[in-house]
Amino acid sequence: MSHLLAAASLEPAQVTRLLLAMAVLLGLARLMGEWARQLGQPAVLGEILAGILLGKTVLGAFAPEAYVWLFPTEPGSPIAIAEEGFILMSATLLLLVVGLEVDLSTVWRQGKAMLSVSAFGIVIPMAIGCSLGWFVPTLLGADPELPDNLRLPLAIFVGIALSITALPVIAKILMDLNLARSDMGMLVISSAMLNDLVGWIGFAVVLALMPVGGHGDHAAAAAGGGASVAITIGLTLLFLGLMMTVGRWLAHKSMPYVQSRWSYPGGVLGVVFVIALLCAAFTEYLGIHSIFGAFIAGVAIGDSHHLRERTRDTIHQFVTNVFAPVFFASIGLRIDFVASFDATAVGVVLAVALIGKVSGCWLGATLAGLSRRESLGVGFGMAAQGAVGIILGQLAYQAGLITDELLVAIVIMALATSLLAGPAMQIVLKLKTQRQLHTMLSDKHVVLDPGSGTIREVLSVLCRRAAECNPGQDATDLFRAVWAREQAMHTALPHGLAVPHARVDGLAKPQVLVARCREGVDFDAADGQLSRLIFLILTPTDQPDTQIEMLALIAKTFDASDTRQRCMQAATPAEFRAVLNQVTSEAGHDLTPHDNETLGMA
Amino acid sequence: MSHLLAAASLEPAQVTRLLLAMAVLLGLARLMGEWARQLGQPAVLGEILAGILLGKTVLGAFAPEAYVWLFPTEPGSPIAIAEEGFILMSATLLLLVVGLEVDLSTVWRQGKAMLSVSAFGIVIPMAIGCSLGWFVPTLLGADPELPDNLRLPLAIFVGIALSITALPVIAKILMDLNLARSDMGMLVISSAMLNDLVGWIGFAVVLALMPVGGHGDHAAAAAGGGASVAITIGLTLLFLGLMMTVGRWLAHKSMPYVQSRWSYPGGVLGVVFVIALLCAAFTEYLGIHSIFGAFIAGVAIGDSHHLRERTRDTIHQFVTNVFAPVFFASIGLRIDFVASFDATAVGVVLAVALIGKVSGCWLGATLAGLSRRESLGVGFGMAAQGAVGIILGQLAYQAGLITDELLVAIVIMALATSLLAGPAMQIVLKLKTQRQLHTMLSDKHVVLDPGSGTIREVLSVLCRRAAECNPGQDATDLFRAVWAREQAMHTALPHGLAVPHARVDGLAKPQVLVARCREGVDFDAADGQLSRLIFLILTPTDQPDTQIEMLALIAKTFDASDTRQRCMQAATPAEFRAVLNQVTSEAGHDLTPHDNETLGMA
Repeated sequence: MSHLLAAASLEPAQVTRLLLAMAVLLGLARLMGEWARQLGQPAVLGEILAGILLGKTVLGAFAPEAYVWLFPTEPGSPIAIAEEGFILMSATLLLLVVGLEVDLSTVWRQGKAMLSVSAFGIVIPMAIGCSLGWFVPTLLGADPELPDNLRLPLAIFVGIALSITALPVIAKILMDLNLARSDMGMLVISSAMLNDLVGWIGFAVVLALMPVGGHGDHAAAAAGGGASVAITIGLTLLFLGLMMTVGRWLAHKSMPYVQSRWSYPGGVLGVVFVIALLCAAFTEYLGIHSIFGAFIAGVAIGDSHHLRERTRDTIHQFVTNVFAPVFFASIGLRIDFVASFDATAVGVVLAVALIGKVSGCWLGATLAGLSRRESLGVGFGMAAQGAVGIILGQLAYQAGLITDELLVAIVIMALATSLLAGPAMQIVLKLKTQRQLHTMLSDKHVVLDPGSGTIREVLSVLCRRAAECNPGQDATDLFRAVWAREQAMHTALPHGLAVPHARVDGLAKPQVLVARCREGVDFDAADGQLSRLIFLILTPTDQPDTQIEMLALIAKTFDASDTRQRCMQAATPAEFRAVLNQVTSEAGHDLTPHDNETLGMA
Repeated sequence: MSHLLAAASLEPAQVTRLLLAMAVLLGLARLMGEWARQLGQPAVLGEILAGILLGKTVLGAFAPEAYVWLFPTEPGSPIAIAEEGFILMSATLLLLVVGLEVDLSTVWRQGKAMLSVSAFGIVIPMAIGCSLGWFVPTLLGADPELPDNLRLPLAIFVGIALSITALPVIAKILMDLNLARSDMGMLVISSAMLNDLVGWIGFAVVLALMPVGGHGDHAAAAAGGGASVAITIGLTLLFLGLMMTVGRWLAHKSMPYVQSRWSYPGGVLGVVFVIALLCAAFTEYLGIHSIFGAFIAGVAIGDSHHLRERTRDTIHQFVTNVFAPVFFASIGLRIDFVASFDATAVGVVLAVALIGKVSGCWLGATLAGLSRRESLGVGFGMAAQGAVGIILGQLAYQAGLITDELLVAIVIMALATSLLAGPAMQIVLKLKTQRQLHTMLSDKHVVLDPGSGTIREVLSVLCRRAAECNPGQDATDLFRAVWAREQAMHTALPHGLAVPHARVDGLAKPQVLVARCREGVDFDAADGQLSRLIFLILTPTDQPDTQIEMLALIAKTFDASDTRQRCMQAATPAEFRAVLNQVTSEAGHDLTPHDNETLGMA
């Protein structure tokens, strides 16, 4: 009776620390994620770096008390457990979202290419990895005194560790690059999926081969020996088969029922989450990690066209902006990259992983008929190891199979390949970042209501501002060029827009400034309206096409009357730009599925 | 070095159990929440009951192993800690959402009424509670051997326990009743807010008066004695003041910056959450529980009109459908309502809480000029104790102040008042549930493409179906009545709708059936279109106004061409109804702020 409320295990002081730790982790991860994005990198890179900064390597080295206070290291600490539980939920929900993004019809369409890429992408690095693990384990920092009965498991583990692909990392990178729904993105994701499946099953083999059971209450471990491996593989394939047929069908059929009777749109949310948690629990029970089940649940559910865009978007926004940053930051948190650094092991593991994986996948993709460039893109995408490699390494470490040094080498390799995948794909595929108006404007480029409105005055204000933003330019010269163009023919567009412009020598990149004049300026528009949004477009003389591109961009952006109205109401330059950012994001969201053609892979 | 990955505290077997526990808790809570909603009750009731079913009382009594396996009770169990951490996050995010819903301008407008309601709503029950606790503590199941130096803290605690209002519960009830943004809802919420503030500060006084510190590292406890109470109160008021001025201003000013530079709409999500977690950590540090800080953060942020509706909606949907059910289910989880049941204590506590709180708030509201009916509604709303009462009880129990029996009495009182608040407000305020089309239709009421299309045939199909749905009715009679009306004048509406109808004797409530005819039926419409959505409306003869109400409802529901199109595409009756459910929810969401007039309190 004395423990009526037995579960009150977190003291108020621990609650404070837990909340603070989560705030700091999420806050820094989001901040650095946005920085990475602004530097043109995938957000996930910033999020992983945030974890390294807050973790053992940096905060732990320079302010160890603060590190241990926020992220306690003593085993069994309630705060660490609660943090781990939250990170586990984050990983589960993240993989659910990744699964929801998978479009099975595209996967099937890729059938041959996918099989080719994943077969070569597994066999080649695994062959190299197994040989290394078997013949020269010490080169990888393995224990020289390793008992003989651990040599085979170690060799297979190294093979698997080098052949795995990080589904969550590569999915996020593909999303960031706007390739997630492209044919190439689907090829990479579906190959990675098959790859992961083989990897997890292989890892179950490794665990089954280990002399000591070591690994909790897996269904397989309970059976023991070779039979256990067969059971794990069998159950996994059975689960996969059932989810892809019966599960998919059930989800598709029950969705309208839930949407018609339960509260909308939230009712479906709960159902989706419960299914994901159940599948995650089941695969964890099988011994192939919870995130695999969440992923499969996402694939099965996401395939139903009854799942409405609004529900998908709610899940997607919430998970990618709250759970994913926490999860990725957590990767770097617990590892000291300085103390356990073995240069040889790191170099060998990284080189072999990259060469094996890129060449294997490149070969598979080329044989499947992709162009050289595309095949290389697939190779670098598949080389990203990220979280999955780290999780596998961590499990092997806990099972006593690998040393600190090999673990650190695997983790660094996983991070490096993840860091490399995005930029490498960008370069190899020659992805051109599409210009967006809101990224071209800083607060200084927006002039709100510059006083009395003749064309001359507005233009001279804009040119002065342009000269301030570009130290090399002179306001008078700019004005003369713009004014000459304006007198040749007025630059009004319909709906109260005007786009005075000029080509300018010595400009590094195109510039856009905007003056918003509530009272309107007479640019002699064809529709008789006064111009209220006046864009000054300055383009480098040596980029003759850019001017027309900028004109089209402005016309497209302000085509909707809602956008124009909201810009008219903005009270500050920041608000003005916020409107543009929102409009662009919303438009971008709608366009994603049709954008595949840009890759020329349709 | 051997603990490179120190935080791996959850074994795979524990991860399985944790995921399963969360799936079961969320699943049953959502299921029973929806059932409650379908019975016209607030969803929160079903969610709390789900917790009682899965908790010590029911599952724990009938299948104790399953209960302990899912929700371990041994102190320090990693699963219990992880569950508690997740529940803590849920509570924090729930209060953030409640705070976001608060519209400060409405709160200020209520100034006088709010002060009056909360003053009387605190003073009267507190006076009764303190007297009981001081003079007849044993009546409440308090320890007869209670040391003398605990009598004063106990008396004050009972006073506070009886005068608190459950902000999250009442906010959810008001949302469910569609009153959250009404003037009355805002009066209840703002009074509850003031009430909570006073309650938490009072509780800090109780803790400070306790002979042993007992309570972790509170800022106040560190200072010790009377000074500590003053410090807690001072810091709380300072925090509140800063958040309502500087914090509010900062949130408002930084929002456009974040929205213009970070990814949209998700960028803001992370910022909102980080602020909420920081505030929660700070108030937890002060000793007045984390949820208070999350609530204040929500109020400060939600007040900015820069926070766009889409962001609010994403947070709202996610929290009310994922985190809130988990939190409310967790309330009933840990308590055995049978073993620690003391009928006297329960009866006294419940009676005093209800009478004291309802009469106090009723008096306050009446004095502030509200009608008798409205005052009573405010009283019952404010009487809901829910989570806050339970949390306070739990803290007092941990501090050794109260017995199991008094705790159970407080918990039952909190649940009973929460259960009562919704229905009582509905009765007292004579809230008429507005009819909605999708709740009137079952699958049987929807006929898709009933074959060749003359008016006679379609009407006879509909009448036969109507007779099947209403055992007392005869298909031929129904058809005769409908056909007579139709021949007098055709019932086509614009846009391909038609609404044949009849008044019928012996019908209990109005009936609507719908036939969708893709090829169209000629109802001789004024706009020349064939009718493709044909609604048969049968109303009881003794409800003369209902017919016109139903006609208006159908015309309004199908005014949007998008709705009509989606209905045309539905493949099954369930899909057809799913469209209506979604349309109604979306419309309801838009309409909420303007619907206040229904209460006649504008």
